[in-house]
This record gives sequence, structure tokens and C-alpha cells, in this order.
Amino acid sequence: MSDDDTAETAATSENLVELAKRRGYFFQSSGAYGGVGGFYTFGPQGAALKGNVEDAWRDRFAVAEGNMEIDAPTIMPEPVFEASGHLDGFDDMLVECPECGESHRADHVVEDETEYEDAEGLPIPEVEEVIAKYELVCPSCGAGLAGQAVETFNLMFETNIGPGDSDPGYLRPETAQGIFVEFPRLKEYARNQLPFGVTQIGRAYRNEISPRRSIIRTREFTQAELEYFIDPETDEPDLESVADVEVTLYPASEQNEEGGEEIETTIGAAVEDGTLDPWIAYYLGVAREWYAALGVDMDRFRYRQHLAGERSHYASDCWDAEAELDGNWIELAGFSDRGAYDLSKHDEYSDDRFTIFRQYDEPKTVERAVVDPDMSYLGPEFGGAAGDVVDELEDLAARDRSAFEGDSVEIDLEGETHEIPVEKTGFAVEEQTEAGEHIVPHVIEPSFGVDRLVYTVLHHAYREDEVDGEERTYLELEPEVAPTFVGVFPLQSDDALETEANEIVDDLRAAGLSVTYDDSGNIGRRYRRQDEVGTPFCVTVDFETIENEATTVTVRERDTTEQKRLPVEDLAETLAAIRAGDLSFDEL
Amino acid sequence: MSDDDTAETAATSENLVELAKRRGYFFQSSGAYGGVGGFYTFGPQGAALKGNVEDAWRDRFAVAEGNMEIDAPTIMPEPVFEASGHLDGFDDMLVECPECGESHRADHVVEDETEYEDAEGLPIPEVEEVIAKYELVCPSCGAGLAGQAVETFNLMFETNIGPGDSDPGYLRPETAQGIFVEFPRLKEYARNQLPFGVTQIGRAYRNEISPRRSIIRTREFTQAELEYFIDPETDEPDLESVADVEVTLYPASEQNEEGGEEIETTIGAAVEDGTLDPWIAYYLGVAREWYAALGVDMDRFRYRQHLAGERSHYASDCWDAEAELDGNWIELAGFSDRGAYDLSKHDEYSDDRFTIFRQYDEPKTVERAVVDPDMSYLGPEFGGAAGDVVDELEDLAARDRSAFEGDSVEIDLEGETHEIPVEKTGFAVEEQTEAGEHIVPHVIEPSFGVDRLVYTVLHHAYREDEVDGEERTYLELEPEVAPTFVGVFPLQSDDALETEANEIVDDLRAAGLSVTYDDSGNIGRRYRRQDEVGTPFCVTVDFETIENEATTVTVRERDTTEQKRLPVEDLAETLAAIRAGDLSFDEL
Repeated sequence: MSDDDTAETAATSENLVELAKRRGYFFQSSGAYGGVGGFYTFGPQGAALKGNVEDAWRDRFAVAEGNMEIDAPTIMPEPVFEASGHLDGFDDMLVECPECGESHRADHVVEDETEYEDAEGLPIPEVEEVIAKYELVCPSCGAGLAGQAVETFNLMFETNIGPGDSDPGYLRPETAQGIFVEFPRLKEYARNQLPFGVTQIGRAYRNEISPRRSIIRTREFTQAELEYFIDPETDEPDLESVADVEVTLYPASEQNEEGGEEIETTIGAAVEDGTLDPWIAYYLGVAREWYAALGVDMDRFRYRQHLAGERSHYASDCWDAEAELDGNWIELAGFSDRGAYDLSKHDEYSDDRFTIFRQYDEPKTVERAVVDPDMSYLGPEFGGAAGDVVDELEDLAARDRSAFEGDSVEIDLEGETHEIPVEKTGFAVEEQTEAGEHIVPHVIEPSFGVDRLVYTVLHHAYREDEVDGEERTYLELEPEVAPTFVGVFPLQSDDALETEANEIVDDLRAAGLSVTYDDSGNIGRRYRRQDEVGTPFCVTVDFETIENEATTVTVRERDTTEQKRLPVEDLAETLAAIRAGDLSFDEL
Repeated sequence: MSDDDTAETAATSENLVELAKRRGYFFQSSGAYGGVGGFYTFGPQGAALKGNVEDAWRDRFAVAEGNMEIDAPTIMPEPVFEASGHLDGFDDMLVECPECGESHRADHVVEDETEYEDAEGLPIPEVEEVIAKYELVCPSCGAGLAGQAVETFNLMFETNIGPGDSDPGYLRPETAQGIFVEFPRLKEYARNQLPFGVTQIGRAYRNEISPRRSIIRTREFTQAELEYFIDPETDEPDLESVADVEVTLYPASEQNEEGGEEIETTIGAAVEDGTLDPWIAYYLGVAREWYAALGVDMDRFRYRQHLAGERSHYASDCWDAEAELDGNWIELAGFSDRGAYDLSKHDEYSDDRFTIFRQYDEPKTVERAVVDPDMSYLGPEFGGAAGDVVDELEDLAARDRSAFEGDSVEIDLEGETHEIPVEKTGFAVEEQTEAGEHIVPHVIEPSFGVDRLVYTVLHHAYREDEVDGEERTYLELEPEVAPTFVGVFPLQSDDALETEANEIVDDLRAAGLSVTYDDSGNIGRRYRRQDEVGTPFCVTVDFETIENEATTVTVRERDTTEQKRLPVEDLAETLAAIRAGDLSFDEL
């Protein structure tokens, strides 16, 4: 018998990746053609696990929070990324080896071989200097890289929409832009009321120079993002609901300090002492509970604040959720305050308004300078340009009232200066009543990487132990994410056993459980196969089942390998109760 | 009161598209930047409906059929599409207007303005002739197109993987290739046993020259595909389970015949009389039942066989599921017999084997010609080329035994002929026992378009009627696909009503129902809003609810607008039973 406490948490990426391939979790795509770096296929087990993670995210961050979910295209036209800043700023530093021609991320070469920890933040000339000074070499062939130009490389995949190359399109580098660009319509669905949230689960793409570490840094991946639109002056999160959640925080101040440390605290206390802003704090609290329920080991989990040089071009503050794997911390999610950046940019670059109308508590009376030009004067004087003159006068009145203090007003029209008598402009300062103003909402963004989470859940669930003198590998997956909840086996090849087992499969499926049927190989091998894919329970139909009047089956629990006989009659109900968390195997 | 029989099925694409935009089903993407043809965003209602359709497909075609589901990347490397034939053959005919520069599909220009019905099948010179002969003009600006070259245009979106352009990649034109290319691994998960099926739901891309008709022909869309791998000699489908399913068939023979007609028959009868092949017949039967359950109007549904010139390069037979919209038939799904085409191609082009081992019923004894050359002779004679000589001799023995009948054997080595004494080749004919052979499985492919189905479900559900003298629009969506199953309203703004209504929302959600809460506007407007998005039921909490001891609420049915008072206590259970199809509103 195995005991949970003695089971070793023995995952290394090497043995996890081997198990993932052999058992159908994930593997590099197009292997028959030698594979391509950064593209992975989820096999039957992996697709199911990934689907369960996505469903759990949807339940928590869309349904339970009352947010809307949308589904936008992955290809978007160039103007979107001109506005978002990705076309100009979404770059990595590239250095090409003069010998073998391989391209490498210059900042990674520097970080791997020097004491620099955040080379991404350095200016290009400095990176070139460091490469020369340390005589850094090509990681592939060992040739010297000194003197090679370091260039920026845009990480978006580019393509052409329609025939010819007049309409460039890009694969979105984040699902977020598919939400931002539709804000003018989405706000109508929210009936023009802040706050509201919009979620999306879907593919995003980054043309990494050197993809790394299995499904951790790929070129095509799945994001689950929430864009929560708030009025920064009035909207507040429901902090009370997460105040007691315990978290490990690693703020920028501690990272910058010699001997700085992670802090164990609660969400409530961290907001109180100013470590966290309330909106980010709220989502850190919600996410901490969510990650724990999915099986991420909370002893190997923390929130780390970005350093100033590390933040994306759009973020005013950002915290990452990080998990420890093989002694390294990897990013699972980012929680950013994107401020008014994105909506302001799209408001500026597009023809639509990316604002929302904020009603004042009481209407305000404001003074406003207006003009009402005498067209019987402007018409004959300016002909077809009279309309432009009116526009100029309106602009000027709004901009600079003092221009109307003399006898005449000067305006510029296509490079020429014209004088217009003030009495012909109809200038006046009027009192107007305003019900509210148009504001650009701020955006709080919890952004989750799904593939990395799948990897982490598997890594943290990987166990090795010994059962009956034999080594065993199993995945201690939570029932909520396990691809299969129960395996059903006839003890041996026999019509009566197989018929009964198939009936049980139908019953369990009707109860909403994910079931697999297996009649191949000896029973020990079948248990081992389910252990390796992380199936929490196995049901075996033996001759006692079909011979007894009170029909019973053996139910085996994965982690302890303990077996109990249970009546077939209540089986579906009992297992469904365990799945729902209302009952435990121990209580049976 | 409305009556189902009097409600008009009044959808035209125009009013459906307007409702879809206003109510959050779907709309053209990036509208703030003028939009881009062929890209659509699903809003909150549309994303939910699409998700329900995908879940229903997964339940039927993956889970219930016992098939595996995988999740592969959308970008694939060039060699995959060299092998699949898409790089060479996945083209449309393009003609560019000499005046306005707009590109058009030449076959569409021909079909729209002449009596030609299937111009896609014509050779390019003939299309050019037809354009000249009929003096066809540019659909955008009216300029003459005669004399313009018609060119082929590959429909795959191209991009580059990694820096530089040495690794072209393509957005997959069908999810299928992500399955085929992984066959060597997938067959292991199936334990090398045929038949087995692999499904995938995901994005596919076609760079259409002129995208058309809302979400019917887009450049980025979602497919749900099943690739079912069979041994064509031994595997048979479970025809009995679908034999009685009634279908409307439009075989190629009827289409080719003057006055040919659709045939009303059953799956069983159509297989019997040779109209359908068994495997395609099986999936037509399953899909017919599935489409009906989703709300596709079976009076506007048929299966049409492809004409010989219309079939894809890979298909030996193909039937489309078609739905009628605005008087046109559109394709919802294709059911193809792809034969051994795809796996043979990948077997030929890649380094892996795309075969499966078929065991003979009994081991066979076969005669095989072998060689066992004398290396003490070949070594000194040929030096470093001795190995190549052995290879040549092995090939020759397998190819042509008679070559070994004389005293010496002639072989070619780099253009030179050499003679080798037969006694030095060790030639012999041996008896060998073989347990089986390696075969290339055949593929049966049911391939579903998800976006088109979403459109059809909405189109066929669109109704207009009159309620209390007012015109009403509603969607008669099946509960299985409706974005929301029940709307909950407090009758008016009141703390007690709102508290009770929110408790009911929580109860219904806990019972697994999709619920929306609405307290804005008068009750009639709220009903109308839910009618327009197709919510089957609305629950209203009024003062009777909170004043009475036996608390009750009003439940209103969408199609009839009939209302009944039901106790709050049983509400969740009652509605869940209706949702599951175990109870009807009439029976309450």
C-alpha cells in the first residue's frame, strides 16, 4: 500500500515530458517531418485536461463574476496593432551567428553567460557591448558573437489578407485586442454602465526567436483573459470576499533590496499597508483560491511584482502569478493595471469613440465660449471657404477666449492670415448645463496562460512510489481537471463481466462522469495505466459482482491504491458525490 | 397570446444579421477601423450559442462514439501541405479588374452572370473565353473584364516561422491535417487497433478572394472534424442503429438527370439499393438526428452528393449536409470517403510510417527471394561501394528473381554496369511465415462547419408574431443551444424583490442552469429582450412571491408567452427536468 506522505514529488521536466508523450498529454507537432520548434499538439488526455482547465476558468472568471464572454478572430488587420503599439514595440533582440547562421535572443545569451539578470531591459548598444566585452559565443556552434549587430525582431506573425500584399494582417499576440477593439459595441451590451468585464479564451501567437522548455514558451498558445472596465474614480472591488486569502508576495521593493524576501500576508493586510492596489489585490485573491483548487502546489506558488523596466508598454502596474518547476520560477498569469492606455489609443487611431458617459451626481453648470458667425458677411467674403472659417472660429473660441477681446479676430486659413471683425463672429460666453462627461474607462487585466498551467498542474501532480514491491508513477490530479474520473474494467475476458461493465459505464456517464472502459491486459497493468494518466478511481467487475444477489464491485482509489467493495446500485450516486466534493472515499 | 402555428418563420439574412449585431450574436470584426471582409466576432450570446453547439458535437461525435479528441496548432510547416496537396491544389480562380484593381473570383463572376452553374470545375482558358464571350464586367466598378488573365490563387494564409523566411508556415485550411500528420503517434494511443476515430474542434483558415454572406463564407472559421480510420476490408459501421432514420437525399445521378429529384428514403433502404456506401450512410444517419435535435428545420435540410468534378482532390465520394436559407442551399457539413489518400501521402513524404499492422487470421507461408552476399569477394572487388552493391542485390532479388537464373548477375552502380557471379550473391528462395501485413488505413471524414451551423440554427429559429397587439421578434431556439435557459426578474425596483430574485438565481445556477438576471426597464421590455435572444423561460418575482407563505413565482414560456405560477421550492428541479427533456411546460 502506498501512503500519500511517502510518495515522492519526483517530477523533472524530463520524465514529465516523456510521460506526456507516451500517455497522450502533449508532444511536439509534425514529428514525422522533424517537428518545428514551439508548436505542440495536445493528445487525448491533454486535450481533456486543457478543456477542463478552460471550463473551470470560465466558471470562475466569466460566469461567477457575471462577465460576458466573446469569441473573436485570431487574425486582425494592421491598424489595430498600429494603435495598440505592438507594431512598433513588440520586439525581442536578435543576434545571428556569423558561422552557423542560427538566430538567438541576444538578451538570453547575455543572461545565460553573465551576471546580468534582466538584459531585456538594456538598450541595444549596451547589449552589443556586453557581448563583445564578455566574448560571448553562439550557443549552437560556439563561434564568437562579438561585433555582430543586435537587431530588433517583431514577434507578431505576419500574413496577407486577400490577394496581393496591400492588406497585411497579424496573428494576435494577445486575445485582449479582440476585446478592446470592439469596446464601442460591447459597452452597448453592458448598457453603457461601468464596471463590466469581458472574457475570451483562445489562441494567441508570438514568433519566438528561440522557443524553450516544452509547452512553457511556445509560438502558439492558449490564453484566458479578462478585461475589466472600470471608472477609476468610483468603482471598487469586493475586497471583503478575499480579504482573508493568504498569499506569498514578492514586491518590487523587496526584489530591489539586498537580502529582500518574499512576504507571507493576506490580501486584506497587503491592501491595508499599500503593497497592493485594491483591484489587482481582488483578482490575486480570487486566482489564488482558483489555482489551489486546480492542484497547483501552494508551497511552490507566489505573486511577484514586475520591476519598472520589465513592465509592458501598456501597464502601469503588474504582478505575475509564478510557479516553481525544477527550481525555476515560471510565469502562470499576469495581473495588470492597463489604465486608460488601450482604449485611449483606439479612440485616437480609429473613427469610433472608446469612451463611456459618466453621469454627474447633479447636473453641473459650466461656462462655455461659443460663436454664431454672421454668414451674410462670411459668405460673400470667403465663398466656398466660409465653412472652414466657421470651424476655425469654433476651435479658437474653445481654445482661447482672449482672442476675441479686441475688435477683430485673426484666423489662419491654408497658411494665410485673415482678420474678421469680432461683431461678425457672434462670440459669447454662455452658461450650459451638463449631465455628465465622456471618460475613457480604465482596464484591469487578469491574463492567464492555459498551456503553462496545464504543464504546472501535471508537474506538481507527478508522483513516484512503490506498490507491492513495484515502482509506480502516478499523477495526483484533482478530480476537477483529471481527463477521466473513473476507469471501468471487467476482471477478465468474459461475456457476462463485459456486459455488466458496459452497463456500469452507461450509468456513470448518465450521471455526468467522465469514464473510460478498458479490457486489455491484466488488471494490474490497467490500474497502472490509469494511475499514469491520473484517473482518481477504478471500478472492477469480477465474478462476485455477477454471482451475488446484492451486486457489488471493487472501487480502487488512485493515491492510496486502497480498495473497497460498493453496491452497483448506488455506485453512480456515490462517485458523483465524491466528484462534487460532498463525500470522500475515506467516509465510505 | 401567441400561437406557435401562427408565428411566422420570417428570417431573411438582412433582419437576422441586424438582430445578431444588436443583441450580441455576431458582427463584423474591427468595425472601428472600417472592418475587414471575412472576419467576424461572436458577442456574448453568439459565443455561448457556439460553445453549446461545440459541446453538443463533442458529446455526440467524440464521447458517445468513443473517439479521441485532440488539440493541435493552427500553424503548420510547409512540408505538411506539400504532402497533403494543398500547396499545389488548394486554389481559386482570380481575375483582377483593370480599372479599379479589385480582385474577384472568376468562377463566381461567370456563375452570377451566365447560365454556367459549376464554373469552378472549368479549365482556366475556358473561363477566360466565357468572360470574353459574355463581355462580363467587374462587379465593383462595371469595367469590362474581357482579356484579363485569370490566375490561380492559393487560399492558404502564409507566414514565416522564426526570423527570416527560411521556414514558411501556413494556417491550416482544415483541422484534419493536424490529425493525419500525428497518425504514427495516435495509432499507439489506440493500441494499434483499427477502427478508431480522432476528433478536433478548432480554427481553420481560407484566404477567400471575396468573402460572402456574413458568417457563411469567412476567412477564419471553426470546424469540428472526425477522422475515422478503418480497415476497408473488414470494418463495418453499426448500420442497424440508424437504419430507420428518414433522410432526403439528392444523389449525383438525380442532379445529372433532366427533371431529377430529391429522394425521400431511410438510411437502411439507401444502403440496400446502393445509393449510399455503408460508412458514409452511418454518419449521415447520426448527423441527421443530431442536426434535428439542435433545431435545424428538417423540412429545409437535405444530403446532396458531390458531382465528380466538384469533389476535393482527396475524396473518392462526398455528400454534403445542406440547409435552405433565403431560398439558397448552403453547405453545413461534408461527409467524405478520403480513402488511403492522406495517410499514403504522408507515408511517402515523411520519415514515419503511416500504416497499421493487420494480423492474418492464420499466419501465412510465403516464398521470398533473399541474398546473402559473400563479403570476402565483394570487399576486395568493390571497396567502400560494397555496401551499395549489397543494397542493389537485395532490391534486385525482391524485384526480379529471373536475374539470378544465369551464371552472373548484372547490377548498375552509379551509371556503370558490373557483373557478379551468382554463387557469390548467396541467392536463395526461402519460405517465410508472416503473421500479417502493414496496410494504410482508409479515412471516413464527417467535417462540420460550426459558424454556418450557428447561422442556420438562428435563421431557422427566427420568428415574428403579435403579442397583445404588438409586433414581437423571437428566436425559437432549442434549450440545448440557447445561450441562456432562464431569465430572472424582480417585478420592480425593490430590495425584498431583488433579494429573493438573486436567491433564485443562485439556486438555478447551482442546478446547472444558465441564468441571466435583469432588473432594468419595465417587465414587458425585459420579456422582449429575452425573446429576442431566444431564452426559453422567464421567472418573475412579484409581491405575491414574498408576501405569501407558500412562495410562488410566475414562469413564462417564450413561444406561447403563457404564464404559470410555480412554487419557488421546486423551481430548480422543475426547470432542470424541462431542460433535460423529462418534463414539458404543458404538463405543469
